[in-house]
Amino acid sequence: MSGRYLEDYEVGQILAGSMRIKVEAARVKSFAAEFDPQPFHMDDEAAKATLFRGLAASGWHTAAITMRLLVESDLKPANGIIGGGFDELRWPKPVRPGDELRVESEILEIRPSKSRPEQGMLKARATTYNQNSEAVQISVCNLVVPRRPA
Amino acid sequence: MSGRYLEDYEVGQILAGSMRIKVEAARVKSFAAEFDPQPFHMDDEAAKATLFRGLAASGWHTAAITMRLLVESDLKPANGIIGGGFDELRWPKPVRPGDELRVESEILEIRPSKSRPEQGMLKARATTYNQNSEAVQISVCNLVVPRRPA
Repeated sequence: MSGRYLEDYEVGQILAGSMRIKVEAARVKSFAAEFDPQPFHMDDEAAKATLFRGLAASGWHTAAITMRLLVESDLKPANGIIGGGFDELRWPKPVRPGDELRVESEILEIRPSKSRPEQGMLKARATTYNQNSEAVQISVCNLVVPRRPA
Repeated sequence: MSGRYLEDYEVGQILAGSMRIKVEAARVKSFAAEFDPQPFHMDDEAAKATLFRGLAASGWHTAAITMRLLVESDLKPANGIIGGGFDELRWPKPVRPGDELRVESEILEIRPSKSRPEQGMLKARATTYNQNSEAVQISVCNLVVPRRPA
């Protein structure tokens, strides 16, 4: 394992190094057909009459793409990215077909576990940006991260 | 539109009527390959040595399946399920291949909008259960819901 231990993070640290993923219209629609079959995620014409005013990716599609970006980013906990739960998850702006997404994480809090000395919790805010650097997803996650073996 | 308006919900109301979705091993792995390529979601053998002690679905796969279950459930807001953000999202137990998931929602809060009289916010807790009625995902979501036209 070549990733980071709890001791390798600092509060305020920004972890970027994200790849970019382009959101394709066909995948927006096929993801929605399987997981979120609502008109604003599936049909260009029908979407115009909705709150989204045009086709938008399912928030869960954006969340899933964000996870892929995080796995490939500099965040890299030694045991992988294991989410112990979210304090916040929101989508301030719709993701449109053709958007190119990237992610940045900021470390908010580092807490060694009292009951399990081999691990700790890392609280991080992951912000997903489109090609215009507009935030399309903001999440605050608690990750289980191992401590560096003595 | 045949769904419910803000006035059609009550605090404490439980909305069930969910279909069931069986989680297939092949889909766990293919979802992970696209969105969450980590050993514990992709490889039976490698998963045994991890915190998950065996293959487990990505939390984002569980979240996406939950969305599908919600869309088909009795929740049915008139404008569709539009999440204005989550106060909580966690996965208390891993989802395993072969699990059969269903969802139940409880209405926690109903707030007409002051600035937009045609809509309001519905806060609901959605709990995703496996076939043994163990909670595998708990989320608390704020939904944008239209008010009944006068």
